[in-house]
This record gives sequence, structure tokens and C-alpha cells, in this order.
Amino acid sequence: MAIEIASVVSKLQMLSTSDHSSVVSMNLFVALLCACIVLGHLLEENRWMNESITALLIGIATGVVILLLSGGKSSHILVFSEDLFFIYLLPPIIFNAGFQVKKKQFFVNFMIIASFGAIGTLISCVVITFGATQAFKMMDIGPLDIGDYLAIGAIFAATDSVCTLQVLNQDETPLLYSLVFGEGVVNDATSVVLFNAIQSFDLDRLNPSIAVHLLGNFLYLFIASTLLGVLTGLLSAYVIKKLYIGRHSTDREVALMMLMAYLSYMLAELFYLSGILTVFFCGIVMSHYTWHNVTESSRVTTKHSFATLSFVAEIFIFLYVGMDALDIEKWKFVSDSPGTSIATSAVLLGLILLGRAAFVFPLSFLSNLTKKSQHQKISFRQQVIIWWAGLMRGAVSMALAYNQFTRSGHTQLRSNAIMITSTITVVLFSTVVFGLLAKPLIRLLLPHQKATNSMTTTESSTPKSVIVPLLGEPRDSEADLEGHEIHRPNSIRALLSTPTHTVHRLWRKFDDSFMRPVFGGRGFVPVEPGSPTERNGNLWR
Amino acid sequence: MAIEIASVVSKLQMLSTSDHSSVVSMNLFVALLCACIVLGHLLEENRWMNESITALLIGIATGVVILLLSGGKSSHILVFSEDLFFIYLLPPIIFNAGFQVKKKQFFVNFMIIASFGAIGTLISCVVITFGATQAFKMMDIGPLDIGDYLAIGAIFAATDSVCTLQVLNQDETPLLYSLVFGEGVVNDATSVVLFNAIQSFDLDRLNPSIAVHLLGNFLYLFIASTLLGVLTGLLSAYVIKKLYIGRHSTDREVALMMLMAYLSYMLAELFYLSGILTVFFCGIVMSHYTWHNVTESSRVTTKHSFATLSFVAEIFIFLYVGMDALDIEKWKFVSDSPGTSIATSAVLLGLILLGRAAFVFPLSFLSNLTKKSQHQKISFRQQVIIWWAGLMRGAVSMALAYNQFTRSGHTQLRSNAIMITSTITVVLFSTVVFGLLAKPLIRLLLPHQKATNSMTTTESSTPKSVIVPLLGEPRDSEADLEGHEIHRPNSIRALLSTPTHTVHRLWRKFDDSFMRPVFGGRGFVPVEPGSPTERNGNLWR
Repeated sequence: MAIEIASVVSKLQMLSTSDHSSVVSMNLFVALLCACIVLGHLLEENRWMNESITALLIGIATGVVILLLSGGKSSHILVFSEDLFFIYLLPPIIFNAGFQVKKKQFFVNFMIIASFGAIGTLISCVVITFGATQAFKMMDIGPLDIGDYLAIGAIFAATDSVCTLQVLNQDETPLLYSLVFGEGVVNDATSVVLFNAIQSFDLDRLNPSIAVHLLGNFLYLFIASTLLGVLTGLLSAYVIKKLYIGRHSTDREVALMMLMAYLSYMLAELFYLSGILTVFFCGIVMSHYTWHNVTESSRVTTKHSFATLSFVAEIFIFLYVGMDALDIEKWKFVSDSPGTSIATSAVLLGLILLGRAAFVFPLSFLSNLTKKSQHQKISFRQQVIIWWAGLMRGAVSMALAYNQFTRSGHTQLRSNAIMITSTITVVLFSTVVFGLLAKPLIRLLLPHQKATNSMTTTESSTPKSVIVPLLGEPRDSEADLEGHEIHRPNSIRALLSTPTHTVHRLWRKFDDSFMRPVFGGRGFVPVEPGSPTERNGNLWR
Repeated sequence: MAIEIASVVSKLQMLSTSDHSSVVSMNLFVALLCACIVLGHLLEENRWMNESITALLIGIATGVVILLLSGGKSSHILVFSEDLFFIYLLPPIIFNAGFQVKKKQFFVNFMIIASFGAIGTLISCVVITFGATQAFKMMDIGPLDIGDYLAIGAIFAATDSVCTLQVLNQDETPLLYSLVFGEGVVNDATSVVLFNAIQSFDLDRLNPSIAVHLLGNFLYLFIASTLLGVLTGLLSAYVIKKLYIGRHSTDREVALMMLMAYLSYMLAELFYLSGILTVFFCGIVMSHYTWHNVTESSRVTTKHSFATLSFVAEIFIFLYVGMDALDIEKWKFVSDSPGTSIATSAVLLGLILLGRAAFVFPLSFLSNLTKKSQHQKISFRQQVIIWWAGLMRGAVSMALAYNQFTRSGHTQLRSNAIMITSTITVVLFSTVVFGLLAKPLIRLLLPHQKATNSMTTTESSTPKSVIVPLLGEPRDSEADLEGHEIHRPNSIRALLSTPTHTVHRLWRKFDDSFMRPVFGGRGFVPVEPGSPTERNGNLWR
């Protein structure tokens, strides 16, 4: 009887999804994600590890197991897919970053962030392209044209903003965090723009007007993407404020916020803009206006569910990259000449180090020239940390490399196969080695932060940084500002020396008089008597 | 310059997802979802509408617009996909139902729920199969074999539990809600099992042993699926209790709960069990144990994010069905003989009414015979509501019909085309007409509920029902039970007349002595002094 039932049951696969092997891989993947979360929690006290490295190592270990089980045929259960990455995994990560970023720090340092992100990426791209052209011509790699070299520059100029979030801690090193992370967001956009531009321009007929085109294109993309994000955010604030007066519905509010954040990203894709920039600014605007227009439960829910989605997406990416790294197909070509592949990876890693150094130190020097007071300047130690924290390469590089080097049939050409495997090597090496060294380096260079709270310094993974209440931040920044206004001894002098604070004060005035009355925001949504907002307002702040 | 930039920009489509038309449809779809939520909120006061009907009508309207824009070529932007439905949309809905269900009501009525769901669905299936065989032979439909007729029975015996949730209100009619919804969950499982069994058995050699096979198969599926769900739920409770003592991390907790809930569904699919049953019981166990082991923020976040996911998935399904309904391909065959199609749909609707009446009234009568006290019996008016509330057919019927009638090339056969279009007609008609009439019918038959809170009776859509705090429920049910124990005048008499309550009391004892010390649960997780749980415990209860 038992056997008969088993045989009956085994026949019942018609409806249980079309492909049973995909169910197996989904099970494995979800179980691995759970394992990463549990292990990440257990390893949190460890001073070397972070969640990315844990996921990457688990991914590689699983890849090895699958490789052995399948007799060396296949290592991955899912193939790296650009669409999955750019449409489902990246948006929640970047949106959450905008949602949780300390807005004052970000905008006060906006000029240097933008110059690091735009000019810095360009310098880095040029250095890597030039270096690769020189080095690879001496090595026996295969036919690469000028477009490939430019693409290599763009691919390896793309910092991994996901990994950066794990290395630096917003609460301990707010300046460095906002600089490096802000740079990462702008850098992502710049890299993608550069890469697309390189692919779409006719590179045989290079002339000066192309530079103008590129600049105009970049400015258009930057401004249009930012505007789109801000407008979508404001629309969500307006709609929720108008609709839910007196009659709130937590589920609808949360659903609307999530859907509109996603809509901003998809709209940017629709208009060929940078979705990363759009969704980042949408997150900033939503946390400034929309978030204050909803119920207390909605605030807690959105804050934590955005953070959770971002957290899971990050682990997913690193697990994915780890598993994909052992794909046997890619390594077939390389196994003939392991030396070339190692040399290529080493050259690229060296160029990444050099390319980043070539803009971090000069641009920091220029930035320091414009600052009067000593504490506003970026010290040499901080510059070293900025340089190091941006060395990791991640999923964006992978996605761009796949796009460039697998178009003409998956790794049919030897040069393409070498470039793909080198990219994987660079991503793994930079994430694991540079990532592992980042925390000790920060402790070494900035020991005073360690002294104040030695325990939390080692726990800079995402979940920890989320525990700090979001509401505390705008209030803190405002307290800062009011402090400035009160302590100001010689106001004209202060006005001249701190122009950013003046801009901030003007913005605050404009915000209070025009924006908040229309779009809501903290203090501009009437608190219903006896509502949770009133009674427990200080709990979640 | 502007034109040149535009031309440059229009070239930058390499990376922005492989297919730009899919970006357009995703934008449209997300925007429509937002519109449904906003409109649903505005129409909430309306006594006829509910969120399902709004989404269905918006879907049809959009289909008409697309049909006109494309010059009558295509009406849908996404084709109905079984995988999308069964893998992504159904699990959150059913999990949330288990997570939010009033557990005492559900288990007190477990026997009648199980008999409605299992025996009732079987009766309904037999009635519809028999009726369809007789009726369709007289009509000119085309070649349908006995397998098709049995499949038709299974397809139209599948109640739509999603729509049921929207029509009945857990807080106003708790008995009816738990009966109809619980039946819907068991019914889904029964229909899927029946359908699979019909497809896998050799129907030319019918013999009595097949009935034994079916029964054994069903019992195996039911018990194994339930056990799997319970075990996954307990595992999540145990892991979270052990891991997070003293050091909580909201994001990790939320992520683990979501992933393990999904894992339970995927594991059921892996073992060819009923994922619907598994994820439902996983939800019940998680709300009983796991949910009490996490931080206050995690509780608020999980409660609302599960509800939001379910809410969005429901709207998604109805929008989807609405848009898919106008797919021109399907109606080509039917346009030759509109009479036959209308007659087929009418016959099926009649059989659904008849098939449901054939088990609701007899089984209620049998159930009433076993009950001693008058208030435990199901009154005739309540029977009519149970009958009516389960008449809606939804996405499960659609998915099963697609599976059965599109295998041999999409609607190549005339009979298949007629069956597909009839299924769509039945789903649309039953959801809109039966759904619209359901609320007025409930008000007509149970007017006393209307008198107490006339405003909320009309607002039985999901978001409203979620506002009632979940934590209130277990406490209520316990207060009930303690009340029973205190007021009990003649305890042996009561023991005999209310055996279910005795079972419940025994379970409660077992739960307190063995289960809760291991798996946590309310009152069994040490409250840290000064934690939000202690300070604001009454806010979220």
C-alpha cells in the first residue's frame, strides 16, 4: 500500500510547477539564505567577518559540493542573470540606502560626493583602460579592440556600494560613510552611463565632439534621474497625505509606498535614465515627507521591511556570485593557460588600486583647499580609508562584464573567457581580501572610535546599523543646526566660512514654508488625540 | 543639442533590461496596482464594492483600452501564468490567512470544516461532473472524454478562498468566516488532489480500488502537508528562540520568518504535497510560537508586511484575471457560436449553485444533529450565507482549466476554446455578480450585526480586518476558555456536551507544559526590563 501511494504521489507532478528541478534549486537557495542569516548572526561578534563574506564563502562551499555531486559537470543552480540583478535585487538595496541615509551629512558633502563619483570614476576608468591596454598587449590574451579596453575601464571603475555599506558604519564614521557610500551611488550611475556610451558610440571615428556628447549625456541623465526620483517621492507623499486624512489603513499605505518606490525605478528604466539614482532620491524624499504622513505601525513596518528586503537582496547577490564563481564552463578555456589568467587578474587588481588612488588623494587635496577649518578637512588617514573602502568590486562589475563579453556566444572566444574569469577572480578577491582587511584597517587608522565603543565597531553589518532608530536622525541634524544658529558668535564670518550651512538653512526655511504644508512631513501631519503616534511618539523615535 | 542627446539616450538601451516592452508592461502593471489601491480606498465606504471587484473592473477596462490601442490585436500585457500564480502569488495569501486566522474558532470547528472541505468538495465535483456530462452531450460542443468531464468537476469545485476573505468579516461573523474560509483552504487542497488524481489515473480501466487509492492518497497528502507545515513553523520558532537570546536583530528575524514560511511552501512542492495546506499550518504555528519570540518591532513589521504582501497579491490576481479575460485569441473560436458559449457558462454556473447546495445543507443538518445546545447549531440563514459565500470561482479554477484545456496546443480544439472562455466567464460572473450580492445578502439575513456597527459591516475588505490587533485574539480565546472553566456549573455534563472544548483544554495544558518552554510563545519569552516589549506591551495588543 505504501509503495502504491508513493507511486501515485510521484505521478502527481503535473501541477506542481512546470519544472521540478527549478523547485529543487529554489528550495536549496532559500535554505542557504536562511543558513547565511543564522551564520551571519553567530559570526557577528567576529572581528573579521561580515555578512557579504559569509554569504560568498557559503556560496563557494555549496558550489564545491554541487560540483562533486554532479561529477564535475556543473557547480551552480542558478545562472547569473542581469535582469534578476537589475530588476529585482538592486532596487531594494539602493532604495533602502536612500531611505536610511543621514540626509544632512549627505547634502553637506554633496559637492565632494559628486566630484568623487563623477570625475573620480572617469579618472579611474581612464587609468584602468590605459593600463590594461599597455599590459594586455604584452600578454598573450587574444584579440581585444579599443571598445573592449574602454569597457574594461568602465567595468572595473564600478565600486560595489553593497559591500561598502557592510564595511563602514554610519554611526561611527558618518562623514566617511556618507562620502564613500554617496560616491558609490553616483559612481554606479557614472559607470553604467560610461559603459552604455562606449557601446553605442562609433569608436572608429573618435573626435572631440564625443566628449561634449558624453558630458551633456551625463548631465542630462543625472538631473533627469534625480528629478524623476524626487517627483515620484513627492507624489507618494501628496497622495498618501490627501487620501488618508482621518481614515488610515496601514496595509494600503505600506503597499503604496513599496509600489511607488518600485515604480520610480521602473519609470527610470522606461525613459532610459539611471534607475539607481532615481530610486535613491525617491528613498530620500520618501523618508523626509511620505514616511511622516502614515500611521505609527506603517512607519515601523516600512522601516524594517525595506531594511529586510535590502538585507536579503544583499545576501542573495553574494550567495549567487559565490555559487556562480565555480561554473565549470567558464574555466575550461582558462585551464590551458592558468598563468595568463592569474596575471590578468593581478594586473586588473593593481590597476584598480592605482586607479582609485589616482583620484581619491588629488580630489581630497582639492577639497581640503576650499575648507577653512581644520576639522572639516579630510585627513590623510581618512583618505586612506576612503581609498580602501571603495576597492571592492561586486555585482555591477559582474553584470557589465557579462554584458560585454558574452554577447558573441557564451565565452566562445578565448579572450572573452579570460576576461569573464578574471572579473570573477577580481570580484571574489577584492570582496574577500580587501573586505576582510577593511575593518582592521579602520581600527588601525582611527583607533579613537574603537576606544569609545569597542564592541559595536566590529559589528558594522547592515542589521546593526538599522537598529539605530531612523527618526533620531533628522532630529539630531536639526539640533545640530539650531545649535549653530544659537552659538554663532560672529555671524557674517560664519556665513562666509560655512556656505553649506547657509544653503541648508535656506532650504529648511523653504521646506517649512512651502513644501511641508503641501507634502506633509514631521510636525506637519495633525496628530490625532489618543492615537499611537501621540501616546508612544517617543518609542520609535 | 537636445535632439542629439535624445538620440544618444535612445541608444542606451543595452543594459536597461533585455526587452524594453517588458519594462513598459511592468510600469503599466505597477501603476495599475497603485490605482487599484487608491480607488479601493476611495470606494471603501461603498456598500456594494470590494477590492476584488474594483481590481477586476480596472483590469477589464485596461484590457479594453489596450484592445482599442492595438487595433483589436491584443488585450493583455501579461499572459496568465500558472507558475507566477502558484509560486509567487498564492503562498503569501494563504500564509497570511493562517497567520491572522482566529485559531480557537478554527480548531473548535475543525470537524465540520474538514467535512465541508473534503466530503463537500467531492459531492460538488460529482454533481458538476454528472450534470456537465448530461448537459454538454445535448449541446454541440465537441469531443470531450470522461477525463475532461471529471476535470471540469474538479475545476469548478474549487472555491476561491481569496474572494471569500473579502466578502466575510472575521470580527463580525467569526463562526461563518472560519467555516467558509477554513473550508476554502481544505477545498483548494482537495480540488488540486482530485485534479491531479484524475490526470494521472488510467480512466479507461475504472475499478473500485481506485477509490481506495484516492482516499489513501488524500489522507496521506492532508496529514503529510499539515505535519510539514507544523514542523517548519516549530523549527523557525526554535531557531529564533535559541539564536536571539539577549541579542535581537529585527531585520534578521523578519527575514528568517519570511524565508522559512516560503521554504515550507517550496518544500511541500518538492515532496509533491499540498503547498497550500502546508503554508497555512506554518502560518498558524508561526503566529502561535515564533511571533512571540521576536522583538516588538519585528512583530509589528511581520504582521503588517505579511498582510500587505497578501493584499497586493490579491489585487494582482484580480487585475491579472481582468486583463486576461479579453484576450482576443480565446474568443475567436467562440465568436462563431456565441449561443453555445453562453449556454455552457450558464449550465456551469447553475451546476456550481446546485453542487454547493448539495453539500452545504445536508452536511450542516448532520452537523446540527451532533450539537446539543441551540447556539452551536448552524441556523438556516447561516447555511444560506455559507452556500452563497463559497460560490465565487477564482484563480485556482483558471489555473486548473488552463492546465487541462491548453495542453494540446493553445485552444486549437473548439471544445477546449469553449471550455477556456466559459471558465473565464464563470470566474468573472461569479466574482462580480455573486460577490456584489454577497454583502447585501449578509445584511439581509443577519440584520442584527448591522445594527451594532453598521459602518464597519460594509467595510469587510482585507485592510480593515487587519487593523484589529492580532495579539488581542489569543488573549480573547483564552479568556473564553477560562470563562468556561469558571462558570461551569455541572462539569461532567459540560464535558460530555462540549467535547471540543475539552480537547482544547487538554491541548492548552500540553502546550503550556511541553511546547511553550521549548518553542517559546506568549508569556514564555523572558521580557527584558525596560525593553519596548515591557514598556509598551499594551500598545500592540
